[in-house]
Amino acid sequence: MDGMRMTNVLLCGGSGTRLWPLSRTLMPKQFVKFSDDRSLFQQTVLRNQRLCEDQLIVANTEHYFLAIDQLEAIGLPDLKTRYLLEPMGRNTAPAIALAALCLEPDEVMLVTPSDHLIKDEAGYRQAVERAEVLARDGSLVTFGIVPRHAETGFGYIEAEKEKVLSFKEKPDAVTAESYLKAGNYLWNSGMFCFCAGAYLDALRTYAPEIYKASVQAFESANKMDTMIRIHSDAMMAIPEQSIDYAVMEKSDQVKVVPARMGWSDLGSFDALAEEVPSDANQNLILSSRYTALVDVQNLIVVDTPDALLIVQKGSSQKVKAVVSQLKAQGSQLPDVPVTVHRPWGTYTILDESEGYKVKRIVVRPGKRLSLQKHRHRSEHWVVVRGKAWVTCGKACYEVVANTSTYIPIGQTHRLENREATDLVMIEAQVGGYVGEDDIIRIDDDYHRG
Amino acid sequence: MDGMRMTNVLLCGGSGTRLWPLSRTLMPKQFVKFSDDRSLFQQTVLRNQRLCEDQLIVANTEHYFLAIDQLEAIGLPDLKTRYLLEPMGRNTAPAIALAALCLEPDEVMLVTPSDHLIKDEAGYRQAVERAEVLARDGSLVTFGIVPRHAETGFGYIEAEKEKVLSFKEKPDAVTAESYLKAGNYLWNSGMFCFCAGAYLDALRTYAPEIYKASVQAFESANKMDTMIRIHSDAMMAIPEQSIDYAVMEKSDQVKVVPARMGWSDLGSFDALAEEVPSDANQNLILSSRYTALVDVQNLIVVDTPDALLIVQKGSSQKVKAVVSQLKAQGSQLPDVPVTVHRPWGTYTILDESEGYKVKRIVVRPGKRLSLQKHRHRSEHWVVVRGKAWVTCGKACYEVVANTSTYIPIGQTHRLENREATDLVMIEAQVGGYVGEDDIIRIDDDYHRG
Repeated sequence: MDGMRMTNVLLCGGSGTRLWPLSRTLMPKQFVKFSDDRSLFQQTVLRNQRLCEDQLIVANTEHYFLAIDQLEAIGLPDLKTRYLLEPMGRNTAPAIALAALCLEPDEVMLVTPSDHLIKDEAGYRQAVERAEVLARDGSLVTFGIVPRHAETGFGYIEAEKEKVLSFKEKPDAVTAESYLKAGNYLWNSGMFCFCAGAYLDALRTYAPEIYKASVQAFESANKMDTMIRIHSDAMMAIPEQSIDYAVMEKSDQVKVVPARMGWSDLGSFDALAEEVPSDANQNLILSSRYTALVDVQNLIVVDTPDALLIVQKGSSQKVKAVVSQLKAQGSQLPDVPVTVHRPWGTYTILDESEGYKVKRIVVRPGKRLSLQKHRHRSEHWVVVRGKAWVTCGKACYEVVANTSTYIPIGQTHRLENREATDLVMIEAQVGGYVGEDDIIRIDDDYHRG
Repeated sequence: MDGMRMTNVLLCGGSGTRLWPLSRTLMPKQFVKFSDDRSLFQQTVLRNQRLCEDQLIVANTEHYFLAIDQLEAIGLPDLKTRYLLEPMGRNTAPAIALAALCLEPDEVMLVTPSDHLIKDEAGYRQAVERAEVLARDGSLVTFGIVPRHAETGFGYIEAEKEKVLSFKEKPDAVTAESYLKAGNYLWNSGMFCFCAGAYLDALRTYAPEIYKASVQAFESANKMDTMIRIHSDAMMAIPEQSIDYAVMEKSDQVKVVPARMGWSDLGSFDALAEEVPSDANQNLILSSRYTALVDVQNLIVVDTPDALLIVQKGSSQKVKAVVSQLKAQGSQLPDVPVTVHRPWGTYTILDESEGYKVKRIVVRPGKRLSLQKHRHRSEHWVVVRGKAWVTCGKACYEVVANTSTYIPIGQTHRLENREATDLVMIEAQVGGYVGEDDIIRIDDDYHRG
């Protein structure tokens, strides 16, 4: 170690409906809390803050506030964090290029997905430390996981010690078996380590269009103190490509660090079932309700307030087809979780019927909703915990716990939490139409339309 | 037919947790709506009002208002209905004795369970008409269902045409097979037809203690115009026994009417699965949420807001063990459904957390809750449909849809619906304790403590 800092680049772009209905487009896998109290995103942050001084979180704009919330919840005030916000995903080569452009050329980037499980922290640390040494020497380092079985769901790296011989696509079962037997094939983990400048140089050489478009997107980006927001048009102009395809498979500076670190990508419920305990009949039950299973074996039961999935173990790859079918039907189920995260907190629909809707609204300390009005509904607000600061027309007033207020139809209003604890409110909406899109925003801290 | 009237005695005493979690102690099987719009109770009423002028509903006190609600919902204003309310079940011999005491001795009683399915109405009508003729001749008639398979879950009647040779307990599989082969064994359906006096005479002869205690219970009962309520002590004093054991197996006046009527007792989810269509993989799904099943076969999935049951077809008898276990743990799940029926309507818990609880309350036309107060909670009422008439302390006022009111802690209050349509209200309770037992009733239309 030479004392120069290393930055953890966390890739949070996954839309992750492979673990649907737990994960949704607006609540991707890395932010879901499984059996652990902490999401995979939070676990990744905690793991890497022991190895890196700074972190740069690359996320979709939609998930920015989710990431902020989860980061605040683990409380690391000294960890320097920046956000790089993508309006849409263009795969890893552009994402890592934009991240590299945020850093000094000689800064070492530890690039990690934020939705993987790593159980062996010592093994991980050892691998990262070795990768850092190689990266400071100018190498483009990838991490190869020593395979535990003949997995057909991952790409492989053929290696000779730290030298990469070739990258291999996802193999069929027979080929995977031969890789396992050969002993010098490693799972391609999607983690990387290199100097920012080294990566950009290689990208300029091997994928100049991606490089050029990435530089342009970075230059035109909206840059604030701790947040860089890429514009849609500029992002769209970057060719979509993986870092493996664009750089790693082509450069001769590539090295691999073989590692054992109890790694899993949790890419399906079957992968999850290997990590989370099943019951005596080998059923994996993910449910917060009382669930009784009688004379059934090897089931994965995933129970959420608006969707129930029951899948035979070994068949969880087919969940993708269920999600595709729902999308084709125009259903919101793949996208929207029951508890919706907003920049200011969350809302959860408790009841909905003709002419009314009931929500539980949680506003986080110091946050406020937009100044807004509705054409078709009135709102009754009952504060059940905390204190609300309410703007209603020209009036501004406090609403303490166990009191209520009323927002007439068409009236401009705003809800704010100026306290240090969460505000919890029950909202009963009444009107001829109670859809989420009946909202006219007059002023918004979060610049939404 | 001689023009004398026949009365349908509907036995509604079943506690029916065999179809848990659909059925609960407070929502027994006969009142549950399965795939049909109408409950088995409603179907039974409709079926028999074509054959009987009057009906006498024998129900547990707990289910009185559930029965009234469901009866009103099908709207048969000309059907003369009386209720015989039992504070607890003492099996069929006492229940039918109490019912017989409500009638004239020469009135014919058609005694039917209210939780069975009968698909062949013509076959049913034919059997009942034959039974009525025999009953008017003084016979004690039981209905024997021509068996469709070697069922081990029912008792059998060995018959020679209409003559009963013997009653048989539930057989083992080999014996059931021999019954089916023999051809003169019938399923014991639990339906009966006889003159009230003939039954009471037989009971006095063969089970004099039951007879005597039933007469005493009837004489001391609280008798109103259309409702007879048996007192607890008197009911407890009647020996618990089935009509088969007390009378039918002993009397020489017994006759059996063999019948084909598409009958099922729906005594388990497997029995239900024979009547309700399964999916292409033979899974029976009873769920109001979106439910995806992947690569699983022959499952019964029963999904309710607070409990999920997944059972392999063929194993549904074991649901009983799940319910027993829950009871042993002191759980409310076997007893209380999420939507709780009260004499005045229903309530449904939408949300509950420390310090607050949210309910949807539906008050039926012309009904009112008790005049009451709470020691530990305030209540915020938002009317979302209909109109409420509210008493709060000394004030009485209307609360129309889209307005709200507040009931302070300790304040005497009452909620009433004087309109012709349902009142729907969202209630947010706030307080240190929000349990259902924090209620002091000052006045109650339904004489509750």
